[in-house]
Amino acid sequence: MVKVGIVGGTGYTGVELLRLLAQHPQAEVRAITSRKDAGTKVADMFASLRGHYPKLAFVEPGAAALAGCDIAFFATPHGVAMAQARELLAAGTKVIDLAADFRLRDPAEFERWYKMPHSCLDLLEESVYGLPEVNREAIRKARIVGNPGCYPTAVQLGFLPLLEAGLVDTDHLIADCKSGVSGAGRKAEMNLIFPEAADNFAAYAVKGHRHLPEIVQGLNRASSRPVKLAFTPHLTPMIRGIFATLYAPLKDTGADLQALYEKRYAGEPFVDVMPPGSTPDTRSVRAANVCRIAVHRAPGTDLVLVLAVEDNLVKGAAGQAIQNMNLMCGLPETTGLTAAPLLP
Amino acid sequence: MVKVGIVGGTGYTGVELLRLLAQHPQAEVRAITSRKDAGTKVADMFASLRGHYPKLAFVEPGAAALAGCDIAFFATPHGVAMAQARELLAAGTKVIDLAADFRLRDPAEFERWYKMPHSCLDLLEESVYGLPEVNREAIRKARIVGNPGCYPTAVQLGFLPLLEAGLVDTDHLIADCKSGVSGAGRKAEMNLIFPEAADNFAAYAVKGHRHLPEIVQGLNRASSRPVKLAFTPHLTPMIRGIFATLYAPLKDTGADLQALYEKRYAGEPFVDVMPPGSTPDTRSVRAANVCRIAVHRAPGTDLVLVLAVEDNLVKGAAGQAIQNMNLMCGLPETTGLTAAPLLP
Amino acid sequence: MVKVGIVGGTGYTGVELLRLLAQHPQAEVRAITSRKDAGTKVADMFASLRGHYPKLAFVEPGAAALAGCDIAFFATPHGVAMAQARELLAAGTKVIDLAADFRLRDPAEFERWYKMPHSCLDLLEESVYGLPEVNREAIRKARIVGNPGCYPTAVQLGFLPLLEAGLVDTDHLIADCKSGVSGAGRKAEMNLIFPEAADNFAAYAVKGHRHLPEIVQGLNRASSRPVKLAFTPHLTPMIRGIFATLYAPLKDTGADLQALYEKRYAGEPFVDVMPPGSTPDTRSVRAANVCRIAVHRAPGTDLVLVLAVEDNLVKGAAGQAIQNMNLMCGLPETTGLTAAPLLP
Amino acid sequence: MVKVGIVGGTGYTGVELLRLLAQHPQAEVRAITSRKDAGTKVADMFASLRGHYPKLAFVEPGAAALAGCDIAFFATPHGVAMAQARELLAAGTKVIDLAADFRLRDPAEFERWYKMPHSCLDLLEESVYGLPEVNREAIRKARIVGNPGCYPTAVQLGFLPLLEAGLVDTDHLIADCKSGVSGAGRKAEMNLIFPEAADNFAAYAVKGHRHLPEIVQGLNRASSRPVKLAFTPHLTPMIRGIFATLYAPLKDTGADLQALYEKRYAGEPFVDVMPPGSTPDTRSVRAANVCRIAVHRAPGTDLVLVLAVEDNLVKGAAGQAIQNMNLMCGLPETTGLTAAPLLP
Repeated sequence: MVKVGIVGGTGYTGVELLRLLAQHPQAEVRAITSRKDAGTKVADMFASLRGHYPKLAFVEPGAAALAGCDIAFFATPHGVAMAQARELLAAGTKVIDLAADFRLRDPAEFERWYKMPHSCLDLLEESVYGLPEVNREAIRKARIVGNPGCYPTAVQLGFLPLLEAGLVDTDHLIADCKSGVSGAGRKAEMNLIFPEAADNFAAYAVKGHRHLPEIVQGLNRASSRPVKLAFTPHLTPMIRGIFATLYAPLKDTGADLQALYEKRYAGEPFVDVMPPGSTPDTRSVRAANVCRIAVHRAPGTDLVLVLAVEDNLVKGAAGQAIQNMNLMCGLPETTGLTAAPLLP
Repeated sequence: MVKVGIVGGTGYTGVELLRLLAQHPQAEVRAITSRKDAGTKVADMFASLRGHYPKLAFVEPGAAALAGCDIAFFATPHGVAMAQARELLAAGTKVIDLAADFRLRDPAEFERWYKMPHSCLDLLEESVYGLPEVNREAIRKARIVGNPGCYPTAVQLGFLPLLEAGLVDTDHLIADCKSGVSGAGRKAEMNLIFPEAADNFAAYAVKGHRHLPEIVQGLNRASSRPVKLAFTPHLTPMIRGIFATLYAPLKDTGADLQALYEKRYAGEPFVDVMPPGSTPDTRSVRAANVCRIAVHRAPGTDLVLVLAVEDNLVKGAAGQAIQNMNLMCGLPETTGLTAAPLLP
Repeated sequence: MVKVGIVGGTGYTGVELLRLLAQHPQAEVRAITSRKDAGTKVADMFASLRGHYPKLAFVEPGAAALAGCDIAFFATPHGVAMAQARELLAAGTKVIDLAADFRLRDPAEFERWYKMPHSCLDLLEESVYGLPEVNREAIRKARIVGNPGCYPTAVQLGFLPLLEAGLVDTDHLIADCKSGVSGAGRKAEMNLIFPEAADNFAAYAVKGHRHLPEIVQGLNRASSRPVKLAFTPHLTPMIRGIFATLYAPLKDTGADLQALYEKRYAGEPFVDVMPPGSTPDTRSVRAANVCRIAVHRAPGTDLVLVLAVEDNLVKGAAGQAIQNMNLMCGLPETTGLTAAPLLP
Repeated sequence: MVKVGIVGGTGYTGVELLRLLAQHPQAEVRAITSRKDAGTKVADMFASLRGHYPKLAFVEPGAAALAGCDIAFFATPHGVAMAQARELLAAGTKVIDLAADFRLRDPAEFERWYKMPHSCLDLLEESVYGLPEVNREAIRKARIVGNPGCYPTAVQLGFLPLLEAGLVDTDHLIADCKSGVSGAGRKAEMNLIFPEAADNFAAYAVKGHRHLPEIVQGLNRASSRPVKLAFTPHLTPMIRGIFATLYAPLKDTGADLQALYEKRYAGEPFVDVMPPGSTPDTRSVRAANVCRIAVHRAPGTDLVLVLAVEDNLVKGAAGQAIQNMNLMCGLPETTGLTAAPLLP
């Protein structure tokens, strides 16, 4: 039984970890921290968890809270994990950060986008980027994993087969992405309230979103040539879900794209390549740890069109984090992650 | 391992049975029927089930299709189960009808509300109304169970403690109920399309809804005096969920209502009486087999106010049906029904 | 041309006043104040108003800002209007308060529910409650109008004919009300963000909502006997709209309720009594200054069932305020308020 | 006063014409036809129109129904307008078709995409494509106008300045478009019902949408080189609104794009070029006849990024049709179209 601690459990990735871990047969949440809500029971904050965590309460953060844990998930703002990781590792607790501290290999890039210097460069070096479809073996051995962002998971999984095969013009990649509002976090901000976000569609962060360098890093890793990517995030009036519409000019318009994708993801438990002619929708993965992908040619052009969907809180966050935990703890990768999506 | 057949699996209760049974460790779906979609794989109709039922396909209805099944769920329109139940029972297959054929004890009432005569009165007599919180022991022994309607489940669980204790004036009960749109079924009807149902709130069936006689039957069973009930259903722009706001004049205004409810539902695995002062919301039970209840006094009046929520497709339909299956098949009642609600 | 000032124009009632006044042929917005956003153009805060108010900018609050205005609307929190009304009246500016300062006749009730003493009792005495269907002539002569709350407008218009005719048992009135989320205001609060409020239905303020004393005051005014009212507000996932489901025991079950309502509201430009057997929905009044009402008998009971809908921001706030302005300024009552509802 | 007839008024473009014309000071709806609903009052079908059209009822289609009308709007399926246009023109009634009969100049293209031959080639030749920002003077003189599709309006207005100026590589244009569900029409189809379409995001028609040839025709008209366009429509869970995200590789990366757009649309009453750095959202044009556009550079690439929003039922359909009517009838172009958008 894996002993789990969660740091900062009052946001959406935190409560989603609790939901998923309640179903996990080999993990047990031992501690959950929150400075602001220490003393509050999680079931008093989230009525959905009554009956699942009748006694678990938030405690003050700090290494003592997590003593004895095998794994600590950081469901915190950026900067928290890197401040606490060293102490936890020393105590034998592995770290999975759901924020950005261990995603970008280049500390200068981290500082540029997150407006703070990286505080533990050696751990950054040691850490592994937690995209199992790329780094599975390294994750198994890792002590620190930077769990990918929600957009980066969908965009990378969607583009990787094309880039690894060198089939596209890497100067003109486009990721037109649409996210449900939970992607913005559990934050009381004006633009997120229902009357502002419902029945509305908007683009945001068109001058540069923090997930851009993470995506480019991942795509460059797969590509023999550096990529140039236009990444446009949009907010769509739904709770969960990311839909990534990806475009790239094909260099070889005769390639069998369907076969390419099926082969690349054969055996992957959490990537589903749909049959030819299909179009995925976000509800087909709601609440489940799946990225579902369809590949098309855009008619009348030389462009490939890839459609990739995921639940931003599951395969885009907490589910993938548990997938990483399974790998790091020697459990079967799919343990606790096999529930069917919620439809309707 | 319970061998399960599903009759009429293309509606929302059908696909919800599939979703829940995919997680059930002691049940296996052997067959699913649909006249219209025979030959189609369930995963081709519901992409959410790819990976969970890779090979299961709809077959033509009929007793042969269900041969060898321990349990047949009828997720069909009214009238289908009573036409097929006798043959199934003879073959040793128990029946759980999610439609109305075995809900109303009085065949005249059935005919009045469903516009068709009841075709197997002996089986109706034998059948058990599948509300475990009332009929648990009878359900264990039953061969045929009439699974309660969605509104009746919430309204009965909300009112029962008051009526059993004889605390309220039974002439003035009110059930003001709000349902998500999936309660209307998976039907292509104009008033259900998104532009009609979204950002809108409406009452319907104010002249009499089919669930009214079912609710009254259940309340009368619990009450020493016959009840008069105003039942007003409303459609609210959400996918799942029922919210029942119940009012009754108290005869004894000094009663300890909180204690009454807690005692009545002590030990019930799927009824949650919330702490004093709480108000439930539908998302706190989304996707889970729970009815969550809070009891209040309406300030400035002699009225008791009960708030009860459920997921209409789970505790209001498919989840409760599986709860009944567990009882009928000698399994622990909660088997396969312990997943936490989906929040957000 | 009526010269209009708006105090506190950054909330939903403020921006709705701007929207409606942009269409008003006899009114002109001269000034709009906001302490926090002074200097910002309204069109920069609300892109929908680009082209309608290209130059109008928020200015610092204070009497100088409103100098020369014929009417000042207060779209502010409670307590602001009563602090500024005296000075404005002295300068010849009439006041319409969309908050609660001039709604409750009894200053003790005001203090009890709003947690502040009333600061200008003489003006409270002089002020008129701005429900034109009750106080039309007084409004015409008023210098200060307390614009009704959103729930009180729908509930009073729904119950008034019954109470004025003395047809119901006033001890057991029930108003089960459902509001869109904009009713909570334009506030960055956690329970209002999209992932919390969407696909969810919840009751709130069941221990007592501030609109309760206002409703009771209005109903008592119409009734020969004091009323006891259970008022249960709910939050429903839509942007705009209030749906009030009203119940009362009939003393005379033979009364012609349809005729009663049609007669009571004959000639009322903004109350629509629907034909027998109809059920209103909130979208049928979206964006328009209408309260639409249907009256029914609840089958199997002695209860009357009244369904009343309005747009909480229009007939429930800004539209009614403009209706009051028209009356106070000698304009035809419907001026600028005749646009058709937005459907779908 | 323009005498207006509407053919086929039970869909969303029909009811939107009624809503907008109710506000139009120089037009009067004389007749509205519907084969299926002849005899029904429009106010009985659309409660929102009670009070606005108390007597207007649907009548059987046919030229007699429209006798004496100055303008006939066809809010019908494709193929109806071309069957009736000749007779109407002969009777002196001008025609605005909101379907596709007079959109495509090439009858072969029409037949290819709409699966029916064009039945009046001479009228097609005479007809004018009703995009006022391109064809204003021709529309003034036209007897028949093909009103543009919803997607084509937003995509053309978004791309035109770039193409007219020859600034982009026309081989790699991308229009990633998102539509509210009303864009699919008022049709009882399974994929449109609330539980299927809500809280979900999906792509559709990726193999080729009927609006593709219309867009390409319009872009080619503006471009000195033929364009290749990838057009991906998506369904987003909102009632109204189109959001077009447009990408094109810039040939001249030093161009002043903001100035280009502001100059191109200077004086246009219904196209709003937002300030530099802005991002539009669909609610900012809800219910109004506006296309709002922002132009950006996609960081790190040579791509221009154009964001264009409209209400699909207004500037994308009925509003633009009335704009065309105003032009054809010698009225000021903005008559009846000046209402502010509905926010929130």
